[in-house]
Amino acid sequence: MPVRPYLDTRCALVDEALDRLLPGEDIAPATLHRAMRYSIFAGGKRLRPVLVLAAAEACGGAMENALPAACAVECLHTYSLIHDDLPCMDDDDLRRGRPTSHKVFGEALAVLAGDALQAIAFESVSRMTPAPGYVGADYVCELAQAAGSRHLIAGQVMDLEGEGQKLSADQLRAIHEGKTAALLTCCTRLGGMSAGCSSAQLGALTRFGRALGLAFQVIDDILDVTQTSEKLGKTAGKDVAAEKATYPSILGLDASRAEAAKLTAEAHRALEVFGDAAQPLRLIADYLLAREY
Amino acid sequence: MPVRPYLDTRCALVDEALDRLLPGEDIAPATLHRAMRYSIFAGGKRLRPVLVLAAAEACGGAMENALPAACAVECLHTYSLIHDDLPCMDDDDLRRGRPTSHKVFGEALAVLAGDALQAIAFESVSRMTPAPGYVGADYVCELAQAAGSRHLIAGQVMDLEGEGQKLSADQLRAIHEGKTAALLTCCTRLGGMSAGCSSAQLGALTRFGRALGLAFQVIDDILDVTQTSEKLGKTAGKDVAAEKATYPSILGLDASRAEAAKLTAEAHRALEVFGDAAQPLRLIADYLLAREY
Repeated sequence: MPVRPYLDTRCALVDEALDRLLPGEDIAPATLHRAMRYSIFAGGKRLRPVLVLAAAEACGGAMENALPAACAVECLHTYSLIHDDLPCMDDDDLRRGRPTSHKVFGEALAVLAGDALQAIAFESVSRMTPAPGYVGADYVCELAQAAGSRHLIAGQVMDLEGEGQKLSADQLRAIHEGKTAALLTCCTRLGGMSAGCSSAQLGALTRFGRALGLAFQVIDDILDVTQTSEKLGKTAGKDVAAEKATYPSILGLDASRAEAAKLTAEAHRALEVFGDAAQPLRLIADYLLAREY
Repeated sequence: MPVRPYLDTRCALVDEALDRLLPGEDIAPATLHRAMRYSIFAGGKRLRPVLVLAAAEACGGAMENALPAACAVECLHTYSLIHDDLPCMDDDDLRRGRPTSHKVFGEALAVLAGDALQAIAFESVSRMTPAPGYVGADYVCELAQAAGSRHLIAGQVMDLEGEGQKLSADQLRAIHEGKTAALLTCCTRLGGMSAGCSSAQLGALTRFGRALGLAFQVIDDILDVTQTSEKLGKTAGKDVAAEKATYPSILGLDASRAEAAKLTAEAHRALEVFGDAAQPLRLIADYLLAREY
């Protein structure tokens, strides 16, 4: 199975669902809805929502039942990027090759567009159809915990507080677990839950999501050092400029590449219980590691 | 029934529940949890959570079942205040008589503490016990819509965009419906829903919440003009300084006072269907109007 057509068909499904979910730019306040749509339809890879769908498939679920969760994680991810790019945070001018939200709409509207995207993420996930073993509120609680002060926001805070500090590899991993792995794990878990997965399956999806998320972040760290801004579609070398600890700065490039490969192998092992049904999840894992780093 | 003991006992219940809900300051990241608690335990009046509890009582429900929603609306309200006070928004240094979050913790952490409070609001409301006629996800959807781009955030955006503009009374009302009335209506609805209220009861609670919310905002506008910063516990005269339209600036003080009284009467009429069970809601409405304006 080739990865590109798989990703393209799933992305199209997600894009359509996001277009239905977000209020149109003709609905007041128009600037707010324009700002929300500007960041949601900015050419993101849709990695997180596709993971939700692929995890649902791995457990024999219908993609349709997973779509509200897929939209929710994309809205949540996008809000966190908008706030992360703010002048008081990473102060980034470029994201996915385009000016960041606050550059286009101003800081106040960027804060509010992010806030509204978090709210609509929860509105979307509240619309999940219950599956055997799970009620609607379970999906919400899952997303809220991943988005909260012990996971996603914890990662952001540790990241900010770690600037200019000498971090250990363990401290850096804790940042990455919060900033990236928690939400990717939430994606695979929500997908499985939408299909009424067993607790053994949920455990396997949790291990897969965590390993994949950590691998993804190690690779991002590597790419920040080795690639140009043009190729990344965002400002390269930002981590070094902000004196942020990265895997390459702590372990060196070669050991970082080995770590990424090791985590990917860990992710693949977690998928063994699913057999062929997890082929889409395997494709995604390979796709991420196959990025030129 | 005197209002002060009623409010005090309910506030104590809410404070205890909030203390259980929010991670302790000893839990990492400690600065984040300190910032969240700083704003949550800043001496707020707990009007919104008490409204949730009183609405539950009006429908014969147990306060215990309404507590997760009560905590949720307070977390949501507090996050919106933190973001509203940011330099790029209202740029306020004082809130409830204390320095605002970004003054104490810096802008980045204030943004993140707000974000985390929104997430924990949804975590809390996802823990509601279903009542006859309502499933857990219904409470979440209710809160998400009130918090989203058509209500709470819409009000903030219209407020920002209206600065320095000449607004009509209708436009100002639309701002207040978003900024204040939407969340107060959500409070009374969530309280009723936690008690398994009928659709007629839900309609009455909706009318009550809206009228109360609008009245509350008219009074806040009046107090901003007539009171000192010391008495308000926040910077007085901010609306005038920011060239914001207010009820007094559009209608004059006397007509604004009449409008507040009219809206309170409307709120009281909405409660007639509940009989004596709505006594706590009536007390709260009177308490708000009895503020010296």
